[in-house]
Amino acid sequence: MKIKIFTTGGTIDKIYFDMKSEYQVGDPQAKGVLVKASVVVDYEVETILKKDSLDLTDSDREFIRRKVESTPCDRVIVTHGTDTMIETARELESVSGKTIVLTGSMYPAQFKESDAVFNLGGAITSVQILKPGVYIAMNGRIFTPRSTRKNLELNRFEEVVI
Amino acid sequence: MKIKIFTTGGTIDKIYFDMKSEYQVGDPQAKGVLVKASVVVDYEVETILKKDSLDLTDSDREFIRRKVESTPCDRVIVTHGTDTMIETARELESVSGKTIVLTGSMYPAQFKESDAVFNLGGAITSVQILKPGVYIAMNGRIFTPRSTRKNLELNRFEEVVI
Amino acid sequence: MKIKIFTTGGTIDKIYFDMKSEYQVGDPQAKGVLVKASVVVDYEVETILKKDSLDLTDSDREFIRRKVESTPCDRVIVTHGTDTMIETARELESVSGKTIVLTGSMYPAQFKESDAVFNLGGAITSVQILKPGVYIAMNGRIFTPRSTRKNLELNRFEEVVI
Amino acid sequence: MKIKIFTTGGTIDKIYFDMKSEYQVGDPQAKGVLVKASVVVDYEVETILKKDSLDLTDSDREFIRRKVESTPCDRVIVTHGTDTMIETARELESVSGKTIVLTGSMYPAQFKESDAVFNLGGAITSVQILKPGVYIAMNGRIFTPRSTRKNLELNRFEEVVI
Repeated sequence: MKIKIFTTGGTIDKIYFDMKSEYQVGDPQAKGVLVKASVVVDYEVETILKKDSLDLTDSDREFIRRKVESTPCDRVIVTHGTDTMIETARELESVSGKTIVLTGSMYPAQFKESDAVFNLGGAITSVQILKPGVYIAMNGRIFTPRSTRKNLELNRFEEVVI
Repeated sequence: MKIKIFTTGGTIDKIYFDMKSEYQVGDPQAKGVLVKASVVVDYEVETILKKDSLDLTDSDREFIRRKVESTPCDRVIVTHGTDTMIETARELESVSGKTIVLTGSMYPAQFKESDAVFNLGGAITSVQILKPGVYIAMNGRIFTPRSTRKNLELNRFEEVVI
Repeated sequence: MKIKIFTTGGTIDKIYFDMKSEYQVGDPQAKGVLVKASVVVDYEVETILKKDSLDLTDSDREFIRRKVESTPCDRVIVTHGTDTMIETARELESVSGKTIVLTGSMYPAQFKESDAVFNLGGAITSVQILKPGVYIAMNGRIFTPRSTRKNLELNRFEEVVI
Repeated sequence: MKIKIFTTGGTIDKIYFDMKSEYQVGDPQAKGVLVKASVVVDYEVETILKKDSLDLTDSDREFIRRKVESTPCDRVIVTHGTDTMIETARELESVSGKTIVLTGSMYPAQFKESDAVFNLGGAITSVQILKPGVYIAMNGRIFTPRSTRKNLELNRFEEVVI
């Protein structure tokens, strides 16, 4: 079993440029995290976008969908900004026969106290055991795209009671 | 769904005492990790032992088994030293009707580069979706007690080809 | 001997708000750093501004000067953004009879790899042993306001060869 | 001005071996810390011992003294275990014409919350401005070998009131 990891940017990959006094999307953090955790599963990381998720366009989402659809791996992780993670997840529901887990973080992975490593641990583990479908691994839970929302005030993903 | 987390000690909880120039098992790290990750699942942490896993006796393992068996929660995580995690996992196979995930780390959670947060992310997520049984969440994988061994040289858990 | 520490904002105190996908100046980091280092010198931290140093006005600088001048302590540290640290240092040269050390960092103190702790270590130590005057403690050196510049390309303070 | 940094082991360089469930002195941490802080002073790190300071013998101390004496640099830092740092400092008082600063840490540099980076920041900065003599840079202060003791209970260096 091989896991394909597509990185698209978002807070998880934000780094800080003192020169411009601002954050920008940097190189994907996922690979470094998996190496430090000595992950024994076969995986491959590919950077396909480097964007804040608020800046993702319809054609970006279609691009992500095509990349996920065309990879020969049927276990796929997409690291993604949190603001529109749910929208991209819904777009990916048209891909069939693959287990797709989206994850990201509320704090940049470069921070001392970031949720990035915890969320990636959840994503890597769950993508191997979940049935085909699209899932969001955030805040210690597995959500489906239609059962969750980002609570902006509490800065976390929560279950939507339908 | 509520997750019960029993902590028993091991490397994950090792702290350092300069005075004695040695490490000792300290307070359980699991709770701090889950709080920082803003975990939205209901959980409860209980310290039942504070031992290096090489020092666990048969009666310690029997004690852990009784604690796991008697909790009303049917989703249970046990944080544990890595050296005898597999033995304790086998002991727990006699508990029926519960999903039990053991985890720990190769480096103390207090280290800058520790696998503790990653492993706890995997344990918390997987314990909610796995069928009843006993599992080990280490190095980004879910192992069963009989399908894994600790590779001392590479300092990681691996699959045993049976 | 008591050290007065005035915090004014800058990169050292930058935190990240996922909600707005941006950084903002947060609470001063200096105090937490000194507590973790078990500093045995008497000190007092006071937040007087929370600004990116590019946003500091002439009247902000005059305000900082008055705060430094009026404190009864004659050993003063000012944490400050790096972009206009030298300008504020020059403004402070009109204060007489006090040892004043400005410091800050190129990466937010909340980052795993930040120069904030190192620079504060240098500032606290040197403010106790330097003669009255105004100094900048950055990148492991003590500069005078007229002997240094911020090298934007290499993202560090350097000596100006006069 | 070039700073020579001799590393001798001690808590600052302790790493953790899960295999043996113990800490050991590893490679010197000083260099990595100085690189991350983008130190602009010229320096050179040389490992001369890798020992817990409780294990240092008289001949080890004599060896350290000879290394410090024979280096052409007249600004020298010695990283050292805390338990016998004061004894080594006294031994070094026979070296004349050099500014010698000893430092170390109460928690291994590999820990998330370690005093190592802070202390190294203080040592690097102060070694450039102090007059020839032997000093200890710990807990945000510059001590002389005869004016300090390690308070085992509070786990810090303090001034001895003579």
